[in-house]
Amino acid sequence: MEFSSKLLEKAVNEMAQLPGIGKRTALRLVLHLLKQPKEQTQFLAESLQTMRNEVQYCKSCHNISDVELCEICCNEKRNHQIVCVVEDIRDVMAIENTGQFKGIYHVLGGKISPIDGVGPSQLNIVTLVEKVSSGRVAEVIFALSSTMEGDTTNFYIFRQIQQYEVKTSTIARGISVGDELEYADEITLGRSILNRIPFENTMKSS
Amino acid sequence: MEFSSKLLEKAVNEMAQLPGIGKRTALRLVLHLLKQPKEQTQFLAESLQTMRNEVQYCKSCHNISDVELCEICCNEKRNHQIVCVVEDIRDVMAIENTGQFKGIYHVLGGKISPIDGVGPSQLNIVTLVEKVSSGRVAEVIFALSSTMEGDTTNFYIFRQIQQYEVKTSTIARGISVGDELEYADEITLGRSILNRIPFENTMKSS
Ligand SMILES: [Zn+2]
Ligand SMILES: [Zn+2]
Repeated sequence: MEFSSKLLEKAVNEMAQLPGIGKRTALRLVLHLLKQPKEQTQFLAESLQTMRNEVQYCKSCHNISDVELCEICCNEKRNHQIVCVVEDIRDVMAIENTGQFKGIYHVLGGKISPIDGVGPSQLNIVTLVEKVSSGRVAEVIFALSSTMEGDTTNFYIFRQIQQYEVKTSTIARGISVGDELEYADEITLGRSILNRIPFENTMKSS
Repeated sequence: MEFSSKLLEKAVNEMAQLPGIGKRTALRLVLHLLKQPKEQTQFLAESLQTMRNEVQYCKSCHNISDVELCEICCNEKRNHQIVCVVEDIRDVMAIENTGQFKGIYHVLGGKISPIDGVGPSQLNIVTLVEKVSSGRVAEVIFALSSTMEGDTTNFYIFRQIQQYEVKTSTIARGISVGDELEYADEITLGRSILNRIPFENTMKSS
């Protein structure tokens, strides 16, 4: 791609550093900004910089927060004995959206992935083990994605906390609500049969 | 979408103003920046602002340029009598990539589109007509997208310049090189038959 302007080229190259944004898309986005009032670019640039420089993480659960302790960790109505372990804050948002979970979270910040150079020490695992060892946690729910990396991470954490008196569970995998059985992939379908639950339980939850 | 941080929410909302970037994608991009060194966000923000504030447009063809006259308009080896009219600078880049065009360009900055509130006065049409009326242009090639808006714009410009002694042409539409005929859409196929060219011409071009 040949650019007629170095300023344009630099902006496109920076934009194209973002994951999933190729050079063509980056060019389209940058040309869009050129057509909009200067303020739009300014607001975008400033909000990104302010966020990057000033954002904080909850000192208890590592959720993104503008204060020391996030709203969820501050909430006395939530059950602080049940800790749901997730990969990143998008998972917190997704679970919160369901309205089904009243415990607290622990955000790992990723999963163990040797290929990507992510080891246990780069994740928020020590603080989780401390939390469990304090005896105030009754149940740890693993809600990582069901991939090899997710399973590895679950197992790594499990080994660290199994010495304490704590219940561990993972979220149920199965056919999505409303999905036709015939279109489900076989691994999911297989798991949903192996992990079948008493019928009366399904009636309770609805 | 409920955010646990106002800073995060603001950054995501600004990012989601970009065309084709929904809130979920914006969140993914912003969370990526949070995982990268602060410098990456700084470079991105600064390059966008610098570009938006300092970019110039070639005073002759309106191509983006860091100087008054773009490289193409400055190039004495190009044929300044043949002007290719395009919508935006992406089209200049695309045609330059082919290496097939040795004339100069005129970038309109869009096409006439009443629905989007874009009239002729918002496009770089006056300077094109001036260029043609000066008598230094032998041929104007319309290379706008072949949509109703493109056709409207072509026709509007054509009426403005037909009084001058200038040849006008549009780029050929047809089946893409290498494409199977059976998969082409019928309008393109129809045009490619109507606008068929003498066979010996195809031999010259290869
Ligand atoms: Zn928290
Ligand atoms: Zn120029």
